[in-house]
Amino acid sequence: MYYKQGLRLGILGGGQLGRMLIQAAVNLDLEIFVLDPDTDAPCRYLAKEFQVGSLKNYDTVYHFGKQVDILTIEIENVNVAALEQLEKEGIKVFPQPHVIKLVQDKGLQKDFYKQHHLPTAPYYLLQHKDELAQYLAFLPAVQKLRKEGYDGRGVHKIVSEKDYPNAFEQPSVLEQMIAFEKELAVIVARNANGDMAAFPAVEMDFHPEKNLVEYLFSPANIKNDIESKAVNIAIQVAENLGIIGLLAVEMFLTKDGEVLINEVAPRPHNSGHHTIEANMVSQYEQHLRAILNMPLGDTAIKLPAVMVNLLGEPGFEGPVHYEGLETAMAIPGVNIHLYGKKKTKPFRKMGHITITDPDLEKAKEKAQIVKQTLKAIT
Amino acid sequence: MYYKQGLRLGILGGGQLGRMLIQAAVNLDLEIFVLDPDTDAPCRYLAKEFQVGSLKNYDTVYHFGKQVDILTIEIENVNVAALEQLEKEGIKVFPQPHVIKLVQDKGLQKDFYKQHHLPTAPYYLLQHKDELAQYLAFLPAVQKLRKEGYDGRGVHKIVSEKDYPNAFEQPSVLEQMIAFEKELAVIVARNANGDMAAFPAVEMDFHPEKNLVEYLFSPANIKNDIESKAVNIAIQVAENLGIIGLLAVEMFLTKDGEVLINEVAPRPHNSGHHTIEANMVSQYEQHLRAILNMPLGDTAIKLPAVMVNLLGEPGFEGPVHYEGLETAMAIPGVNIHLYGKKKTKPFRKMGHITITDPDLEKAKEKAQIVKQTLKAIT
Repeated sequence: MYYKQGLRLGILGGGQLGRMLIQAAVNLDLEIFVLDPDTDAPCRYLAKEFQVGSLKNYDTVYHFGKQVDILTIEIENVNVAALEQLEKEGIKVFPQPHVIKLVQDKGLQKDFYKQHHLPTAPYYLLQHKDELAQYLAFLPAVQKLRKEGYDGRGVHKIVSEKDYPNAFEQPSVLEQMIAFEKELAVIVARNANGDMAAFPAVEMDFHPEKNLVEYLFSPANIKNDIESKAVNIAIQVAENLGIIGLLAVEMFLTKDGEVLINEVAPRPHNSGHHTIEANMVSQYEQHLRAILNMPLGDTAIKLPAVMVNLLGEPGFEGPVHYEGLETAMAIPGVNIHLYGKKKTKPFRKMGHITITDPDLEKAKEKAQIVKQTLKAIT
Repeated sequence: MYYKQGLRLGILGGGQLGRMLIQAAVNLDLEIFVLDPDTDAPCRYLAKEFQVGSLKNYDTVYHFGKQVDILTIEIENVNVAALEQLEKEGIKVFPQPHVIKLVQDKGLQKDFYKQHHLPTAPYYLLQHKDELAQYLAFLPAVQKLRKEGYDGRGVHKIVSEKDYPNAFEQPSVLEQMIAFEKELAVIVARNANGDMAAFPAVEMDFHPEKNLVEYLFSPANIKNDIESKAVNIAIQVAENLGIIGLLAVEMFLTKDGEVLINEVAPRPHNSGHHTIEANMVSQYEQHLRAILNMPLGDTAIKLPAVMVNLLGEPGFEGPVHYEGLETAMAIPGVNIHLYGKKKTKPFRKMGHITITDPDLEKAKEKAQIVKQTLKAIT
């Protein structure tokens, strides 16, 4: 166990994931250091030290990391060279720099799955847009930027030649479009002892326009063999990566019962928010247990849950106002999480709501009401 | 609803109750101000502003209160005159100063119960020790200081004349000793609209020497009619007080099925810690909902639970070390809450552990193991 009271934990990124990680870290008496470029970041008042600076700058990340005992991330887009140096100098960096490096590049990710015989959609790596010409027979496909894409940004559908003009010029992955039935996610934790524990699979419902999770259902409505398959794949990815910390594995369930890895995130994840109220251990505490090399917590479900992302309402930009809060909070089992962002803009993640109910169908009905009622406007 | 984003909430007291209140307040995007005399108080890194100063000093409390929109407490022993002035000047002070004043004085508390025909043990008010002489026939009794007693301090058993030399000289309540079967507690919330909601009754097991809760069981093992009686009494007390916020009502269940009020606390309480993991809404969020005049949350039980206070081990005083943490955390359903106190001393509240399990008896077995394993030493 790496734990000691008052251990200095550094978090790269001060957004909502960092915020919820701190809420869990309070229970373990850790001293929290946060680095974020935004003076108004959600973690601004919750850390022992909140430092403003770039996550991509070598010196900034290096000097920040030198102050702490264990360094973790809540966002992948950080300076890995600095993390590699810190690791050499004996700072515990979890997830490890080699994992972050791999995850930062969707091309390396795909090659990794292929190399380890892990199921994923067929793909090609492109350097330039003009290479698309040779893959006409491969369409329809999805073109994903290898780097810096997230929350639906950096993704284009390439259905036919007509879409070529809109394609990305930069290095990308051209992935076969999967006719999937559902999108699933499994979050696995692995500590330095090699202990592993997976949360039950959840089912994600994406916003039709923006590539953002709109509803999440726990447990997923899938057969036991599919559940086992999804959990086993997630465990294999974590094991092959040798990751220390959490790994969220997003997967496609195809119409013929195949489970294919879509992508992974080596940190607490949007698909695990519900675990705060709905599982025996939350993903945030589990991440801490993993990086502190503590025994992993029980991932069992306490109650079925639906999670709804509270996205900035289209058409509104500016200081946020939450409309319908009172109505939403009057519904039994509704748990509101506001992220403390001062300004809203269309589709910005402003918060989330977890609805727990012994009956998942009732939770779904409540989620619909919440979705129609609670709005982040100005 | 008094709520708005970024509302400034002041908390008098920066101890563990304030700490857990902040963990809940994060979800509602409140700006937290904390006043505590101790620079190392558990809330020190979690507030937007943590101010060091006396809770009993008029000017300190007044100036602190002037900065915030809503002012609450996590300890009763605060300067009420300052709160009365702040209330006059339009600051929302919840619980209201008149409630705090009443609760600060166990004599006024007892008179209040009598006046409102609320069941409580027979008592006399004493100004001086020498008045004890006239109550010989009333013994055995418990002498409680009217003011400033807490966590078992300020309480003496007066079984016979032999105990008179040890009796308190200050103003006190002499209360008939109750041959009780169990001690129960019910936490009620009341908002400014007058909505009320009670948590199910819990059963408390006290440390034989120190008057501190050692184990708490949720739900209490009592018959339905006793549960109703306890809940109704708690609701009546809250209603008669007109309190806005949480009220924890501790009660004795006598061997012949009577329920008598022991004492009350107008704030989150040790007997409600388990609600964080074990109930649909936690007592901390419920307190916020009440003082923000929001709809109250669902108090239903998610899972049975046992709560164990982690008290400083006798014989140890100094910088704390938690022995057995790894073993305790390996048990499924164990939730550790360390309060971030740097130094331990005998019987100091250093943290608590909530064990949830679908089977309360299993939770009790686990609690015993935790109790034997996890120690706050130096």
